[in-house]
Amino acid sequence: MIGDVPNVEAGQEFSTRRQAHEAGVHRPLQAGICGTKKTGAESIVVSGGYKDDEDYGDVIVYTGHGGQDGAGNQASDQTLDDSGNAALVTSYLEGLPVRVLRGYQAGTPYAPASGYRYDGLYRVTNYGSKLGIDGFLIWQFRLEAYDDTPTPQATQQAELPSAPGEGEAAVTGNETPERITSTVQRIVRSSAVKRQVKEWHDNRCQICDLRIEVPGGSYSEGAHIRALGAPHNGPDTTGNVLCLCPNCHVMLDAGAIVIEDDLTVIRGGQPAGTLRTDPRHTIDLECVRHHRERWRQ
Amino acid sequence: MIGDVPNVEAGQEFSTRRQAHEAGVHRPLQAGICGTKKTGAESIVVSGGYKDDEDYGDVIVYTGHGGQDGAGNQASDQTLDDSGNAALVTSYLEGLPVRVLRGYQAGTPYAPASGYRYDGLYRVTNYGSKLGIDGFLIWQFRLEAYDDTPTPQATQQAELPSAPGEGEAAVTGNETPERITSTVQRIVRSSAVKRQVKEWHDNRCQICDLRIEVPGGSYSEGAHIRALGAPHNGPDTTGNVLCLCPNCHVMLDAGAIVIEDDLTVIRGGQPAGTLRTDPRHTIDLECVRHHRERWRQ
Repeated sequence: MIGDVPNVEAGQEFSTRRQAHEAGVHRPLQAGICGTKKTGAESIVVSGGYKDDEDYGDVIVYTGHGGQDGAGNQASDQTLDDSGNAALVTSYLEGLPVRVLRGYQAGTPYAPASGYRYDGLYRVTNYGSKLGIDGFLIWQFRLEAYDDTPTPQATQQAELPSAPGEGEAAVTGNETPERITSTVQRIVRSSAVKRQVKEWHDNRCQICDLRIEVPGGSYSEGAHIRALGAPHNGPDTTGNVLCLCPNCHVMLDAGAIVIEDDLTVIRGGQPAGTLRTDPRHTIDLECVRHHRERWRQ
Repeated sequence: MIGDVPNVEAGQEFSTRRQAHEAGVHRPLQAGICGTKKTGAESIVVSGGYKDDEDYGDVIVYTGHGGQDGAGNQASDQTLDDSGNAALVTSYLEGLPVRVLRGYQAGTPYAPASGYRYDGLYRVTNYGSKLGIDGFLIWQFRLEAYDDTPTPQATQQAELPSAPGEGEAAVTGNETPERITSTVQRIVRSSAVKRQVKEWHDNRCQICDLRIEVPGGSYSEGAHIRALGAPHNGPDTTGNVLCLCPNCHVMLDAGAIVIEDDLTVIRGGQPAGTLRTDPRHTIDLECVRHHRERWRQ
């Protein structure tokens, strides 16, 4: 399951991987990443298995899976075809939370002195490849703690595992400037309802037909037609959600696009084609009308 | 100024509008909205001047300015040409924080018993028009408290000013389900650096040339080329920021777009035109190279 598991809070310790497995925090007994390309990553273990990892507490630079020899050295390139790496790309593209378990082996200031500690939910805020220390391509994922995830306390006054770079991004102690300089907000987090609609449409925009392809996946957004909450009080149902590209999402939210009862799309006051539908996806016309009324100006 | 003002914390009370003016919390002595289309709204006063307002504490449905007669009844349509209303649209499009001051006159459970109270920073999460109670068009703005804005305590066990609608959006006491069901994340908040770049390019995408027009303004996003924070540690400077439409922003962030040193845009591995520049906007080629290296795969 994605997100917090029942009866386990951030900060809880486990003596062994098996205990963490039994609590449902991290199900595999060996793999560092639990998840698939389809579901996203449920959880990761930060335990020093890859020498390019960096840990700043609230921010983790996590190296993907694969390409190591038996001695733990990188011996070939990593790829996004690896199911763990692909899972982390999906977590990024869907804005899904990832459980983080830290293991004593990492030996960083944020690692527990022994065993494993569940440190709550993080999100993947960017990813990319580079040549690792051993000269092979690695993929790295930046994970940031959510604002309501407790900041793990550094257990040692040791140096941080690597310099974070020059200038304003320098990390001093526990002040976590890394979080402050983040640019997280680009990705729209998908709820279960939104993911269903996006899956039906295979991430193709129902208005302009664009499907944004990126390394390791594709991206779209679930957009409520009638907005949730006051004053619009739309329902969180598939009939009230469209699969859109980000541009059409902005235009729908701000009234540059409205939809007629016959599903004609009106963009900038002019007819601009017909909303694409799917037999599994029935649009709630009451929501379409409410949205149109909101932009009657 | 936008954001918190020095020496004033959420919860601070003021006996009069003049005191709030002198503290810099809300500068006009009469107007309910302080701001312009160019700068966005600095602050608003919630004081019951418009009968269509709704106040749920963490969420405020705020009616725009204009169209009232001397007795406080709506006598004509409101428009987005009104500078206060246009300011709130800019706050929405730029993702800027708005200071909220509540006045005793509102008479809601969240109003102070007397005088005025500064209640911290909110953001505009949607807007739209409707026929108000008096039968004229009004514009309404939904404002939501930031997660770290303290929730104002209801001072009375009075009924809420209007029913929030059926189903899961029902408000019970102080549980603020309104915030939970929010879909805030679409809009990317602009820093000063990003706003500068967007202004130079007048919200037109430097890659695909699109300018998204919406009622009351236009929308673009400031995108860092070399990402901030570990592991990329890009600088927060105009040379490292592009003015992009949301679609090109997603593609740049996820490596579907990279840029050559001669500013050729490579999209999906193919040349796709040249990045548009401006004499005032010098692109930092070191950042362009770093971004390209990140997607060498």
